[in-house]
Amino acid sequence: MAKIAILGFGTVGSGVYEVLNRNAASVARRAGEPVEVKYILDVRDFSDRPDAALFVKNIDVILADPEVKVVVETIGGTRFAYPYVKQALESGRSVCTSNKEMVATYGAELLALAKSHNCAFLFEASVGGGTPIITPMHQCLAANVITEVEGIVNGTTNFMLTKMARENMGFDEALKIAQQLGYAETKDPSDDVDGRDACRKIAILSSLVCGHHVYPQNIPTRGIRDVTVEDIQAADKLGCVIKLIAWMKLLPGGGVAAGVEPCLVPKVNQLAGVDDVFNAVKVKGDMLGDVVFYGKGAGKLPTASAVVADVVDALKHGVQMHDSLFWQPAQPAEGMLTDPAPAAYYVRVEGAAPAVVEAIYGKGRLVAEHFDGCAYLVEKADASALEEAARKIGAVGGSVKLVLRRLPEEE
Amino acid sequence: MAKIAILGFGTVGSGVYEVLNRNAASVARRAGEPVEVKYILDVRDFSDRPDAALFVKNIDVILADPEVKVVVETIGGTRFAYPYVKQALESGRSVCTSNKEMVATYGAELLALAKSHNCAFLFEASVGGGTPIITPMHQCLAANVITEVEGIVNGTTNFMLTKMARENMGFDEALKIAQQLGYAETKDPSDDVDGRDACRKIAILSSLVCGHHVYPQNIPTRGIRDVTVEDIQAADKLGCVIKLIAWMKLLPGGGVAAGVEPCLVPKVNQLAGVDDVFNAVKVKGDMLGDVVFYGKGAGKLPTASAVVADVVDALKHGVQMHDSLFWQPAQPAEGMLTDPAPAAYYVRVEGAAPAVVEAIYGKGRLVAEHFDGCAYLVEKADASALEEAARKIGAVGGSVKLVLRRLPEEE
Repeated sequence: MAKIAILGFGTVGSGVYEVLNRNAASVARRAGEPVEVKYILDVRDFSDRPDAALFVKNIDVILADPEVKVVVETIGGTRFAYPYVKQALESGRSVCTSNKEMVATYGAELLALAKSHNCAFLFEASVGGGTPIITPMHQCLAANVITEVEGIVNGTTNFMLTKMARENMGFDEALKIAQQLGYAETKDPSDDVDGRDACRKIAILSSLVCGHHVYPQNIPTRGIRDVTVEDIQAADKLGCVIKLIAWMKLLPGGGVAAGVEPCLVPKVNQLAGVDDVFNAVKVKGDMLGDVVFYGKGAGKLPTASAVVADVVDALKHGVQMHDSLFWQPAQPAEGMLTDPAPAAYYVRVEGAAPAVVEAIYGKGRLVAEHFDGCAYLVEKADASALEEAARKIGAVGGSVKLVLRRLPEEE
Repeated sequence: MAKIAILGFGTVGSGVYEVLNRNAASVARRAGEPVEVKYILDVRDFSDRPDAALFVKNIDVILADPEVKVVVETIGGTRFAYPYVKQALESGRSVCTSNKEMVATYGAELLALAKSHNCAFLFEASVGGGTPIITPMHQCLAANVITEVEGIVNGTTNFMLTKMARENMGFDEALKIAQQLGYAETKDPSDDVDGRDACRKIAILSSLVCGHHVYPQNIPTRGIRDVTVEDIQAADKLGCVIKLIAWMKLLPGGGVAAGVEPCLVPKVNQLAGVDDVFNAVKVKGDMLGDVVFYGKGAGKLPTASAVVADVVDALKHGVQMHDSLFWQPAQPAEGMLTDPAPAAYYVRVEGAAPAVVEAIYGKGRLVAEHFDGCAYLVEKADASALEEAARKIGAVGGSVKLVLRRLPEEE
């Protein structure tokens, strides 16, 4: 019998408890022994529950009990989660978490701590919710050098963009519906809509691919606030959809580039068909080519089931997991991890006539004309060319309202 | 330094050798030690190669060398592969294979042998080529009861169906092109086009899900020979594509049903967009909902990289893998593993007028009228209703040329 503790009895934490109870037999079979929750840490009052005896308010109770082998952290944020997880690892207990903010910020340190204390620090649920992404990446792809990752990793914005496309709905209305359905935070939805959540996730995947910590603050990040129904219609004319893409790639010179940005995704791309709250991550291996992992990106039970799978791995393999699931500490990079390669870009300009836009941006295609501007597909440009063009548009009294990279078509 | 042997230096075997050489550093990092090929068993003459010293013609050389820790089997078929693999496992060496025929036929026996000799028997590459499917299924989904699997697992037929749909091409012509490109066997393509290859793969996945051996001969299997361009066009009218689907599901009563058959796949289904030689497998977990694993289903290096990932797992985890990757021996079932549930069906009938077809099949929709028959979508029918209808069509002098189940739309 393996005993574990759950820190935080919110959505995911209570889901972990539920999954362990409902699928106790299959978990026991795979773990090689039954898994039992001995403590649940939460500051709130659960004294009217039949299992009230499990609840504690002080982490020390858990740390003092040698029976507890694995600690599940589902508090979220870093204020409490980070010191608790550190203490747990330092005491030699494995930790399984769904906390992307903590992994994106302190991942390298916590991995090193786990290794030096002979236990495991696992976080499959931090990216893609229940969909297995991190585990197949580090394990099944052991024989590949991963060169690129490209994915839809935020369910909220993907739901909104799908809604906008299907029902000709504006950003504000789509956000309101996402909030009503509980997909977006009511108080402050900016973590999702401004791309910060996706940024943390691609920071985690980038760290895993690069072998050293990649920090969210070095990843250029832009959300979907500026995308309009007209942009989505223009994209459709070009055989594309608009998706919030989180990506990373190894650069030929040895560096790394990463970003979170709404992109034009050609409909032939596997990511174009990923709709609603679904997530998908495409990984390119040098031997394997592209593989895609697809599934629901969030939700109580899917996410909880990924945490429970990590608990099984922690019990079975412990520190051995970190032969492949590991990255080194590193300082944040100076400046942003931009990609110098040119690409095709969609630009929406106000206050400049199509002929002027074409003259400034060079070879391309007029996609739509508005009463005071136009949308234009630039055939090929890099970051500095785009910057220079935006300056020129400003000089003629116009302004660039939106720039979207188009993913390559041959994928 | 871990030493391994490769049995069979064909496409996959030589690919394994190449992957181990090209990605030696990343393999060593993940395995915790360098991995070196000490022997290659092949009856052919490779004496002019610079590495000729590695080649041996007798398995006993390999079995007599205590340095060899893992044996890679890529001979194919069962005549030589099966006794060699048995001997290797009995000597306590782990075996990694891409041989679906052997796993589908002798999987339970070889798994038990591995367990009793404290080594591993791994076969990720037997389904989906390089795409990780078996490993995430048994490991990442540890916290889920899997209730359904549905996939496109044969790249050759998927390439042909894609070609037929895109270029209005008949079966024979599509087969010829697949043969020219090396996707289909020239001498006898029937393993692919008649569904036997897909049948072995779904037998393996079914065994893993059910926990006991499921035999290919109990799985109703039908290939794509009878599918015409007209059927594909009719499917398109219904918002569907035609794909060769391998599927299994747990029945409410506790049994299992499985099959390989061309199906109408609604375009909203994630499998509908899987084209060319790509494979995709959709797995339904009771906690997780649907996840999809997508990638190239075959090819030398993709498949080889999956074998090499298994070698890493065998070296690191050995027999521990079989806490979750395991199924019990079982007798073949009596009769076929059919699904009694009703579904919508597309039928193409010759020698009977639409009104007659409608009267016989009941509620549905006329999809296309031909000079001597029609295509009809039956709203709801089960196997016995279809059989009875076919008998009646025969009684009026007609004949049923093709029956395709339509996958549910709500997926």
